[in-house]
Parts: sequence; structure tokens; C-alpha cells
Amino acid sequence: MQLYRLTSIGLTLTALLLPAPVSAQQNVDHDRLTQVSIINALLLGEYDGVMTIGDLLKLGDFGLGTCDHLDGELIVLDGVAYQARADGSVQQLKPEITTPFAIVTRFERDHERPCPPVDSLEQLEHAVDAMAPGRDRFYAIRVEGVFSSLLIRSVPRQERPYRPLVEIAAEQAEWKLEKVTGTLVAIRCPKWVSGIGVPGYHWHFLSADRKTGGHVLGCQLTSGTLAFDDCSSWLIELPTDTKSADLGQDLSRELERVEKQRTDAGGKP
Amino acid sequence: MQLYRLTSIGLTLTALLLPAPVSAQQNVDHDRLTQVSIINALLLGEYDGVMTIGDLLKLGDFGLGTCDHLDGELIVLDGVAYQARADGSVQQLKPEITTPFAIVTRFERDHERPCPPVDSLEQLEHAVDAMAPGRDRFYAIRVEGVFSSLLIRSVPRQERPYRPLVEIAAEQAEWKLEKVTGTLVAIRCPKWVSGIGVPGYHWHFLSADRKTGGHVLGCQLTSGTLAFDDCSSWLIELPTDTKSADLGQDLSRELERVEKQRTDAGGKP
Repeated sequence: MQLYRLTSIGLTLTALLLPAPVSAQQNVDHDRLTQVSIINALLLGEYDGVMTIGDLLKLGDFGLGTCDHLDGELIVLDGVAYQARADGSVQQLKPEITTPFAIVTRFERDHERPCPPVDSLEQLEHAVDAMAPGRDRFYAIRVEGVFSSLLIRSVPRQERPYRPLVEIAAEQAEWKLEKVTGTLVAIRCPKWVSGIGVPGYHWHFLSADRKTGGHVLGCQLTSGTLAFDDCSSWLIELPTDTKSADLGQDLSRELERVEKQRTDAGGKP
Repeated sequence: MQLYRLTSIGLTLTALLLPAPVSAQQNVDHDRLTQVSIINALLLGEYDGVMTIGDLLKLGDFGLGTCDHLDGELIVLDGVAYQARADGSVQQLKPEITTPFAIVTRFERDHERPCPPVDSLEQLEHAVDAMAPGRDRFYAIRVEGVFSSLLIRSVPRQERPYRPLVEIAAEQAEWKLEKVTGTLVAIRCPKWVSGIGVPGYHWHFLSADRKTGGHVLGCQLTSGTLAFDDCSSWLIELPTDTKSADLGQDLSRELERVEKQRTDAGGKP
């Protein structure tokens, strides 16, 4: 982004400021974010798994998503895949279980620094924005922290015929965790991925004891470290078949509700 | 797409009709379409090359795009990269030349059959639609044919400060070829790639004698064969830096004009 800010300095500088060519070699797996399916397919109710967890873990050791039949939130951390279910429990996923939507990378700590205390998810996002300014880049973000409070949700297993995700998210289980240590697993995508990926931040949490976790709706962090991985390529693995009438429709409002909606039900699931 | 049509038969069939899981192994290079940069960056005037032709050819032996400084139409065929310039000439590209936008695959003839005679590009697209019905799939398409007529265009090399592509396309060189044999190189992307890739068909042509070619605006084919490759994954290689203010804006109308606009200038360039 520095390039853009500097263009007013004049054309004489331009030759010095050309972007470095992308090398085919440079983009080995560890700089690649691999996504299974597209977000509009999930929003329209395509909850049948299309890739096994075993195969997913070959493509990355860090990331998030959901499980076959929309059965909970998927968290991939240090090469292990966890399912955070709507009853608040967490379990390791067997390799033969499938996912209908996930995004993973081989996490490398390109940058790491102490994370400032934050009172909200928005504050945390501003802190990451300041460290990772590439608006058109993809980032994987890992925050190890002590949290005074976390608002978590998960979604319950669905049966066919599947309803759209926005309806299910309105009935999501939602609960608060207090004084907990653990890891935030996040992916940030550019705005222009709309319809295919999730624009902006998408946060999941896994407790240090691996006993609870889920999709993060709110967060207060006391202390921690923040690391991120700048990804130079985005690979989309397509399902063999898609059943939805029109994957190209604008579902950005529905996605916003699915990602951020709080039912304010409170309490443990 | 069969899955979708069959859902009315009832839920008892559904278990039999689940999509086969995507295997991480299955998606080796030959089923992957690799794209350099995103189309909105090109539309907004990012014409500086970001990947060398040498590196591009490691990612695919078939495809299309443009060259550094928007200097002509890029055609990749049988592992060789050609530049079709606005003066009507074609030359092989040296490996150190760069491209700001391209899309390539390792072409495999998943399906091949005689191509019916067609009187327009639209008729040809309908013929391919009938053979390759996966609306949400990516296809690479190769037509070897005898053409009674082809309407070709190419774009002239640009110098900084770059203007938007839609302005340059309005001044494109455009010419007609008659009674020519050669190859159409095309990529078809789903509608939902809008902003990132080129939705629908994108056709380039290279003559059998490798002496002329370019972006195809019109086509009448007498006889030929049509082969296509069904691609199961789409990899986007991102430039290190992008200078444009907002890559997320809707430029679909501009793209439509860039892809299909005829200046009706006629004649040889």
C-alpha cells in the first residue's frame, strides 16, 4: 500500500516503486490460503461435506470452517482439527469426517508482537489493521491470550432439507466465557472476495484446555501475543456438484448477520 | 448439476446423490486453473507485470492474458507463450517478460468432439454450454478449426500514467481474418467470479502458422474439433502490491465493454 501513497511524489520515482514480480516458486503451500467451496454455497444451505478433514489437514495446519451437516464450528490449530458444537463441547475430528466449507493455511509467524489489551472485537481488529495494512492481502491471524470475557456461538447439526444459514444463525447457541486462556484463530480476506469468501475478519476461539470454543462474537483481552501470516495466494477447491440455483446472487447482508449477529440469549448452552 | 434437477424426486434419493468428496490428491496442477492478479486491478490500470512468463509456464501450458505495459494479447498454447500485438504481428515471449494478468492451466482433453459449424461467437458459446453444463465450474476450451471469418482485436502498449482499460479498449486495433486455420484458446469462469476473474467466456485466437492472433470479438467456423478441460480448483496469485484505491468496486459494465466492444473500424491494423 505504500506504493499507492507515494504516487503523488511523481513519475520519476515510479520506476523504483514497481512491485516485485511474483515468483511461482515463492508460492509454495506455506504462503497459500486454501478454501474449500465458496461462502455463497454455505449461505444457501449446502451443508454436506465435500472434503475430508484428513485431506484438509494436508493443505494447512491452521484455519476455520464448519463440519458436515453444519455440525458446529471447525477450528484447525497446530495441525489438529477440532469441532466446537452447539452444546459447548469441543472434540477432535476424525480424519474421515467431512467439511462443506473451510479455509486453512500452513501458519508461519511472519510477524509477532505483544497484543494490547482490548475491550471489544472491533478494537482487536483495529490493532491487527495497524500491523497488517495490506488491504488487498489475505492474512491468517493467531492471538494467544488471557481473556476477561468472550462471547461465543456455535450452530447445531442440521438435517435435510437444509434451510439457509441466516435462519439457522438466528437460532444459534450463544454463551459467555469469563477469565479464560486460549487461542483466537482468524482469517482476514480483502473486501473483494464477497460471494466467494468472507470479506474482513472471521474469528474462532479454542480454549487452552481444548474443552470449549466456537465462533467469536465479542472479546475482551487482558494480555496476549498476536502473530500473523501474510498469504500471497488464494486457492479455491470447488465441490464436484453444487445444488443451489444461483451462487452468484448478492448475499452480503445475510453473511453480515451470520457472522456478527448476537441473539443476546446469554447463558451457557 | 444433475443433483439439483433430481432433488424433486424426494429425500429418499438424497443419500445416494451426495457429491463425492473432493480429494486433496485429486487437485494436482493439471486440474487447477491459476490466475495472476485480479481482473479489477487490470481494469483500473495496473499494467505493470507481476509474474514472469517463465514462472507462468510452470503453472500451465494453456491459457490467456496480457503482457507488461498492456502490450498486446497473451496466448499460451502447447507450453509456448505468444504475444499478439496491436500491429497484427505475433511473436514468442521471452521468459523474462512479465504479465500483469493471466490465467493458465495444464490442459487435458477431458472431452473432445467435432465442433459444429457456427456463424457467431454466441453460437459457439451455446455449443460449448451444451457440452460443459457445470454452471459453477471452470473450463479451459480449445477449438482447432477452419474459420471463414474472425474479428480480432489487440491493445497497444501503454505508458504511465496508465488510463483505465475501458478507455484503451475504445481505441483498440481491430481487424478481420478470412479463411484461416488456427486455434481458439478460451477460459470460461462461473458468473460469481465477478470482480476477481472474467465471468463467462474469454476467447483468444492464434493462427496455425503462428503469424497472427489476438482477442476474439466475432467468429464464423466452418469445421473443427472442440476439446475442454474441467477444472476443479482456482488459484489466485496476488501481486505483492496493488496501487488502486478500491479493487472491490463494481466494474462489471466496464468489463463487458472491454471484452465485447467492437469499434467497427474494420480493415487490417
